[in-house]
Amino acid sequence: MRVMGIDPGLRNLGWGVIDVDGSRLKHVANGVLHSDGTADLATRLLGLHRQLTAVVAAQRPDCAAVEQTFVNKDAVATLKLGHARAVALLVPAQAGLVVGEYAPNAVKKAVVGVGKAAKVQVDHMVRMQLPGVQIDGPDAADALAVAICHAFHMQSAGRLQAALRAAG
Amino acid sequence: MRVMGIDPGLRNLGWGVIDVDGSRLKHVANGVLHSDGTADLATRLLGLHRQLTAVVAAQRPDCAAVEQTFVNKDAVATLKLGHARAVALLVPAQAGLVVGEYAPNAVKKAVVGVGKAAKVQVDHMVRMQLPGVQIDGPDAADALAVAICHAFHMQSAGRLQAALRAAG
Repeated sequence: MRVMGIDPGLRNLGWGVIDVDGSRLKHVANGVLHSDGTADLATRLLGLHRQLTAVVAAQRPDCAAVEQTFVNKDAVATLKLGHARAVALLVPAQAGLVVGEYAPNAVKKAVVGVGKAAKVQVDHMVRMQLPGVQIDGPDAADALAVAICHAFHMQSAGRLQAALRAAG
Repeated sequence: MRVMGIDPGLRNLGWGVIDVDGSRLKHVANGVLHSDGTADLATRLLGLHRQLTAVVAAQRPDCAAVEQTFVNKDAVATLKLGHARAVALLVPAQAGLVVGEYAPNAVKKAVVGVGKAAKVQVDHMVRMQLPGVQIDGPDAADALAVAICHAFHMQSAGRLQAALRAAG
């Protein structure tokens, strides 16, 4: 099972792809997409949409997950993030994938074990769980963390179903 | 010149198309697209994207305009609107159209003459400027107002260019 994680942002949109085989995780690829801050908003979204569509076509994930946005106090920044997040949700859905959503705390808890972990700790655990990975910056690290979180939740759901089947 | 106006919303997305011939405006079509509030966000955005893509393909506008979001105090509502607005900007951009953006006050000023007009007054002036129009609810009326605003601004830009040419 191949999982794509996405950390949405209008200027920098991180993505990361991992393969999940039972409880084994393997890094496939990661990167950061950019949009030109001087272009109008429609052009920026079009650029991100095209780039992310190309990544999905090249990496062929089986499912995707997107980090839920932290709604901060700056309404303008929140609105911009909403635009970028829509592209992150739309592109995998257009490829026929089910798209999971995880709150930042859920991602940290899955990767580090606690919901209030520091960013550097998340980055460290991503590298521990994906040995030898080369990461294209903090947004790509966050995207890989989202992918790991999704893999973890799918494994838990799978174990629950197996236990229910065993219980008859 | 055919202009499409869009009033973005996640639950109800209004659209309206008018033809502009010099200073004459003519209604072409309008409607409201819906997304299922019980579906996940990616599915809702996918549904709106498909519907709006079909409308653009059927109506073949030459340009489009989207209302700028009023950033209100409710961060969660602002974020949702950002998602819907991204679809409204992306779809015409994908069809190769330039997409204008207008603040709500600019739309009211163009349609009614003052920036602080009431909603009922905007609706009335849209009906005055598009005789015989049947409007598919308030979101479609707002979308037609955005289209009228865009037509007005393009006319002004055209007159300015003509004046500059005449002035040599």
